[in-house]
Amino acid sequence: MKEKVINYIDSIRDQIIECRRDFHKYPEVGWTEFRTASIIAKKLSALGFDVSLGKEVINDEDRMGLPSVEELEFHYNRAIQQGADLDFIEHFKGGFTGIVGTLKLGEGPVVACRFDIDALKVNEADTDEHLPSKLGFSSVNEGVMHACGHDCHGATGLGVAEVLMSIKDELNIGTIKLIFQPAEEGVRGAKSMVGAGILDDVDYVLGAHLMSNMPGELVCGANGFLATTKYDVTLKGLSSHAGGAPEEGRNTMLAACTAVLNLNAMPRHSDGVSRVNVGRLESGSDRNVIAEDSFMQMEIRGATNSVIDYLDTYAKRIIEHSAAMHNVDYVMKNMGAAPNGSSSDELIDRVEKIGKQLACFENIKKTSDKAGGSEDYMYMMNKVQENKGKGVYFIVGSDTMSGHHTALFDINEDDIIKTIKMFSLLVIDILK
Amino acid sequence: MKEKVINYIDSIRDQIIECRRDFHKYPEVGWTEFRTASIIAKKLSALGFDVSLGKEVINDEDRMGLPSVEELEFHYNRAIQQGADLDFIEHFKGGFTGIVGTLKLGEGPVVACRFDIDALKVNEADTDEHLPSKLGFSSVNEGVMHACGHDCHGATGLGVAEVLMSIKDELNIGTIKLIFQPAEEGVRGAKSMVGAGILDDVDYVLGAHLMSNMPGELVCGANGFLATTKYDVTLKGLSSHAGGAPEEGRNTMLAACTAVLNLNAMPRHSDGVSRVNVGRLESGSDRNVIAEDSFMQMEIRGATNSVIDYLDTYAKRIIEHSAAMHNVDYVMKNMGAAPNGSSSDELIDRVEKIGKQLACFENIKKTSDKAGGSEDYMYMMNKVQENKGKGVYFIVGSDTMSGHHTALFDINEDDIIKTIKMFSLLVIDILK
Amino acid sequence: MKEKVINYIDSIRDQIIECRRDFHKYPEVGWTEFRTASIIAKKLSALGFDVSLGKEVINDEDRMGLPSVEELEFHYNRAIQQGADLDFIEHFKGGFTGIVGTLKLGEGPVVACRFDIDALKVNEADTDEHLPSKLGFSSVNEGVMHACGHDCHGATGLGVAEVLMSIKDELNIGTIKLIFQPAEEGVRGAKSMVGAGILDDVDYVLGAHLMSNMPGELVCGANGFLATTKYDVTLKGLSSHAGGAPEEGRNTMLAACTAVLNLNAMPRHSDGVSRVNVGRLESGSDRNVIAEDSFMQMEIRGATNSVIDYLDTYAKRIIEHSAAMHNVDYVMKNMGAAPNGSSSDELIDRVEKIGKQLACFENIKKTSDKAGGSEDYMYMMNKVQENKGKGVYFIVGSDTMSGHHTALFDINEDDIIKTIKMFSLLVIDILK
Amino acid sequence: MKEKVINYIDSIRDQIIECRRDFHKYPEVGWTEFRTASIIAKKLSALGFDVSLGKEVINDEDRMGLPSVEELEFHYNRAIQQGADLDFIEHFKGGFTGIVGTLKLGEGPVVACRFDIDALKVNEADTDEHLPSKLGFSSVNEGVMHACGHDCHGATGLGVAEVLMSIKDELNIGTIKLIFQPAEEGVRGAKSMVGAGILDDVDYVLGAHLMSNMPGELVCGANGFLATTKYDVTLKGLSSHAGGAPEEGRNTMLAACTAVLNLNAMPRHSDGVSRVNVGRLESGSDRNVIAEDSFMQMEIRGATNSVIDYLDTYAKRIIEHSAAMHNVDYVMKNMGAAPNGSSSDELIDRVEKIGKQLACFENIKKTSDKAGGSEDYMYMMNKVQENKGKGVYFIVGSDTMSGHHTALFDINEDDIIKTIKMFSLLVIDILK
Repeated sequence: MKEKVINYIDSIRDQIIECRRDFHKYPEVGWTEFRTASIIAKKLSALGFDVSLGKEVINDEDRMGLPSVEELEFHYNRAIQQGADLDFIEHFKGGFTGIVGTLKLGEGPVVACRFDIDALKVNEADTDEHLPSKLGFSSVNEGVMHACGHDCHGATGLGVAEVLMSIKDELNIGTIKLIFQPAEEGVRGAKSMVGAGILDDVDYVLGAHLMSNMPGELVCGANGFLATTKYDVTLKGLSSHAGGAPEEGRNTMLAACTAVLNLNAMPRHSDGVSRVNVGRLESGSDRNVIAEDSFMQMEIRGATNSVIDYLDTYAKRIIEHSAAMHNVDYVMKNMGAAPNGSSSDELIDRVEKIGKQLACFENIKKTSDKAGGSEDYMYMMNKVQENKGKGVYFIVGSDTMSGHHTALFDINEDDIIKTIKMFSLLVIDILK
Repeated sequence: MKEKVINYIDSIRDQIIECRRDFHKYPEVGWTEFRTASIIAKKLSALGFDVSLGKEVINDEDRMGLPSVEELEFHYNRAIQQGADLDFIEHFKGGFTGIVGTLKLGEGPVVACRFDIDALKVNEADTDEHLPSKLGFSSVNEGVMHACGHDCHGATGLGVAEVLMSIKDELNIGTIKLIFQPAEEGVRGAKSMVGAGILDDVDYVLGAHLMSNMPGELVCGANGFLATTKYDVTLKGLSSHAGGAPEEGRNTMLAACTAVLNLNAMPRHSDGVSRVNVGRLESGSDRNVIAEDSFMQMEIRGATNSVIDYLDTYAKRIIEHSAAMHNVDYVMKNMGAAPNGSSSDELIDRVEKIGKQLACFENIKKTSDKAGGSEDYMYMMNKVQENKGKGVYFIVGSDTMSGHHTALFDINEDDIIKTIKMFSLLVIDILK
Repeated sequence: MKEKVINYIDSIRDQIIECRRDFHKYPEVGWTEFRTASIIAKKLSALGFDVSLGKEVINDEDRMGLPSVEELEFHYNRAIQQGADLDFIEHFKGGFTGIVGTLKLGEGPVVACRFDIDALKVNEADTDEHLPSKLGFSSVNEGVMHACGHDCHGATGLGVAEVLMSIKDELNIGTIKLIFQPAEEGVRGAKSMVGAGILDDVDYVLGAHLMSNMPGELVCGANGFLATTKYDVTLKGLSSHAGGAPEEGRNTMLAACTAVLNLNAMPRHSDGVSRVNVGRLESGSDRNVIAEDSFMQMEIRGATNSVIDYLDTYAKRIIEHSAAMHNVDYVMKNMGAAPNGSSSDELIDRVEKIGKQLACFENIKKTSDKAGGSEDYMYMMNKVQENKGKGVYFIVGSDTMSGHHTALFDINEDDIIKTIKMFSLLVIDILK
Repeated sequence: MKEKVINYIDSIRDQIIECRRDFHKYPEVGWTEFRTASIIAKKLSALGFDVSLGKEVINDEDRMGLPSVEELEFHYNRAIQQGADLDFIEHFKGGFTGIVGTLKLGEGPVVACRFDIDALKVNEADTDEHLPSKLGFSSVNEGVMHACGHDCHGATGLGVAEVLMSIKDELNIGTIKLIFQPAEEGVRGAKSMVGAGILDDVDYVLGAHLMSNMPGELVCGANGFLATTKYDVTLKGLSSHAGGAPEEGRNTMLAACTAVLNLNAMPRHSDGVSRVNVGRLESGSDRNVIAEDSFMQMEIRGATNSVIDYLDTYAKRIIEHSAAMHNVDYVMKNMGAAPNGSSSDELIDRVEKIGKQLACFENIKKTSDKAGGSEDYMYMMNKVQENKGKGVYFIVGSDTMSGHHTALFDINEDDIIKTIKMFSLLVIDILK
């Protein structure tokens, strides 16, 4: 069957590439993937998947870092203008841009694959050295770009859908769930899909990322993602004339600066990597006015859940009391979160085995532990493992060299094909 | 002669009001008073004053808080479109928008009067309760408004010019200098006129301000202005990924917050009012990036020169070492400055005497000492007093009630007429 | 009568000087003036005053900055060894070291004079240039010294007592109250005497200070004392190994440093002098241990009650939330307080008049306003003025030159005599 | 030969225990081990070792955290009174309390063993549950105790000396160096011995620690020690009256608090554990005085040399500029330092092999990595490894349960015997 699957995938290559390029041309940032989601839904439906959409797969309360109502509406309308599927788009209204395609084959384990589909606020490069520009499929949406490869992930998911459907009669065991997740950037979306219960019956969950600047590499179990929480903090005080009546003000800048220094000064946790950053601070209006308003964007990251819990509790205390100290009000809004996680050995072994069988990787690493980034897929993997299931997150390296989140970022499209093969053969390997 | 002067002023009332309303309609912020200055220059010239302009009366190096080259050019072109006098405007190019009109009458003392002419970045109210709107002379320049009465000051100056010229044959002693100063808002302009030497030969200098919400009041010597210096501070560090490589960054937010807390924490000076404020802070770009750039707008104020010197030295040390501590570069740019000052008793007495003679004030205060604001006229007064001359700064109250720098600010035009009388009779009183 | 009084005072000069030198030799710090108080009580009683003592004149709850029980006991026993009067000392046990001597002459106003009696923790100089050392009456109590002249104040009070008693038959109007107050240093004692109600019936209250380095000077109404509150802050966290388990600690040093910077950074009040100081900070135990304990000594001062109220509220908020931010407990203990105050014009005039009559001052100033210090006598003066009475605080300058609170501080004893004359004649002037 | 060695060690057990108890009874803190060192020197000399002493083995400039001259002299004299060997003690005068005993056997590798000999400032428990108290060999030096087992290490070294000397004729290859190091506590001594060049010719270096609360355990290669530097910082400003003349002060408390917050706020390094702690801060004198003096004790620790270098450079910058910001002077004194290090695999294997052969450990761990503490032996091990030699640091667990640096700390003396066997057999194993 493997041979057949591989051949089938090679045969639909053009269609997959076309799909990726379409997604790339019309990038949509987190919670606004209206066009992308509608196309995915239509395709899954056409293939014969049982499709769940919108609020069925997204729990409202667990959504983080949502754009404003105006932005959601603007993007919704643009999606329609840019060819969104009108049969499906209504389900996603208001930023419920998730889809799950389910294919029940028979009794047995439920295997889920997760694909993230959102783009970034990056201006795409417009030069001939950048393939999407050269070939004419670069972003038409000013200031938005698929600069992290989630266009490829979306196309991968549709490729996997097609392949698995093509052999469904040979797989008479188990259930396949293809999860298309919005708003991975900023780790904002996964929690809401877990919150909707779509992972509750899953026995195996597979996730992956295409990665530039790692030619020929496969990492079977990418561990070391940091747990993180992200906050926007808005401080409200009272302005007054700094020369004439300083005592009449309530000074948010003093509160904010006290918070920034103390947040950075939190004693670190001995269990491992403990990070904190306030990356953006805006405070006050005019030189001679006590600062009435301040705004901070911050995040914390930790190697373990004990670390992140410690930092999170401490950070909240610092924000609360920095504000109270200067008699100013504050709102602290959760803008994103992800736990850490650890791939299951059984699945790491399967990834390695399939990787070797495919014979298309020059360098296969069992695991990697390099800390720094975060991935909200870990919510899904943790949920499955809590229920005694297994999960894995693997990385498919690509030989393109521009860093993620940069204007020149790209992925060699051959590596999308490889990734489809990996997912498909893994599902088959589990269900066989 | 007094009677004659008073009658003459009353006779040109309409023309003065017209002039004020014209200035009000076309407000120009500091260093961009191209239209205003060209009209003043033309009028002084037409009246027979010896007119010095632009770089003759503005010392480039002493200018503070200059707009960008682009802004200067934009406003220059707009001034031309809005009827600036083409014979004179070239002299002001690049933001040299000062004028001095000189009338030599004979041997004897030099008496200078100073009028400031710039507007503010305020949106003028558009309601019928606001007279300029009702009568159709409110600002046509979006976001710019004469919200501090300098339109009236400019008109006052031209009124004084006309009156004094009309009686020049009866005054055969001394020299009259009428100084029209740009960029008083933010205390940015006076120093550059002093730096050009125009006060060097002055024996008496007179300044005044029209003030809303003080019906019928005259303050003969308004003391208590705070010395001040104002700075923009730009910090440049290096960004890095806050999760993956925090040690590679050079964090300007830590530098800025350290500076803000320490600036506010400077032990105050026992000689009197000691103020410091950072009114604006912008720092960093993204949540997960070490902040590469920060920008602060700050000011210090002090009751005396010893206070301001102490605070200024201390503040500079804090900025320098907050930056150095975090290995970031900084530029600290002087955006405005004014000393404090004290009106000369002799002139306070003269103001009181003339005020009483005019019999148009209900409430004459010899001096006031209320601290809080600053006025860069003090540079001029201090310079004259250093040279053994005398200076005074008086306040003419108006019965309009909206605060300075607000969208509804206005001045009762009768009070412009009073102010012209005060200046004219003071000059005559001194030269007689 | 004035002549007679002056002569009488001159006649008891030796006895007054002896009394002052005795107090100087046995100095006792605030709340431990057991020996001093017992001698004063005995003398007042012997003279025929109605004497109120200890808890009759000191309200326990209003005492601030009390020494430990052990210290109180130690000083009590030392006082007995050093010749305290055993008939009276028991009343003062536990630090209730105040005395009020009352002499009712007839109907009419109640006039109170206040004398403070405590010493300082200063090591007295032991050189021949220092008169007390040369003449053998310098402090026998190691580390304690009358370095602010309250020995002279105590002797002055007893001199005034003797004089007024000597002429009591000629004064048949009103009541005289002589108040001997403990613990003026650190502004700890006056509130407790006011709290005991001893000022409630007073119509006129007189206070004074001898001051070195002001030869021949009399200040009739010394205004400008700053309102103040003083706190000890104790912070309690939890220690942990800084290398191995930093997250297990609760770090009081971070709390304390945050408090110190923010206390100093409080925006100052526009009503006048606003001071804050943390003068002492002790934090932590060992280099490699998270600081479990911290201790701060701080004070705030303000030109007006509005200033001190603003600063006090703000400072408490900073302490509370700096502690809470780092999850540490704190206790903030009021260690002293004084309001500001303003002498009554009527009494200033009387002081001036008497001062001129005495013809012993070279330089009489009606009032002074120099801010900086604080004086808890203001509690008494404010209380009397609240009840529509009048109060004054005058300063008698001395030609000794060493500063207050220094090891070489001394007062020319002639000036004690002058001060007795001032108080006595003022009382007579009021009651006549 | 192994059998013979083991038997020999068992035969001298009583003498070793006696030696340990003698060291325990007369504990001496770092740089004052005058008695201990003189006894070791005498014994090594008597055994026939070539003994180098004092300045021969300690490089003055590399000594850190030295006591004052007075303390050194006090302890020197006490050592004499407590039975120091008068033939040797002079060499150690001034705190040069190191000894190296060398035994040249023939051509071949140089093998060094390091033993640290200093005690701690801890009050020893005085209860029967504490064996040293019960058996009468607890500390006679008030406030000083061997609370980390270095008494056992010293006795171990002398035991190893005796054993190896006893079999010297059977070992005709190589050279043995026994290094007795002062001032390991606070990581102050090792650098000075490396600086004296005594490790320059060493091919193998062995170090070990006895550890309570690890019954039956042997860790063959204890890695994970953190690199560290330790500083005392003294700040000198100027006092002034906080109410009357705050501007005349130079405030070290503001400098210190700024330093503390910023030190804690340093962005951590991504290479691994990054710790900073200010464990002690004393600042200022009195409540109403601007703080003239401050004193801080701090340390930084890092998983790697890149981490410690980054933190060290950053910390120095913070100290320098916090002081300069407030115009105060500072001295930053290096009080201790240690690098991290990693035992050589070859020697780890040998330790494991010998450990197994001895059959006295219940639990043998190849390596441990638990981070937290520091050990200045790493200077020695790094030096040898830099010269292409090999080093190891192993841990011998003991079944006593009280933590290191506590008043009840103790070591089961059987484990001293085990440790002597380990060292002796390792040397033989290497040289055979």
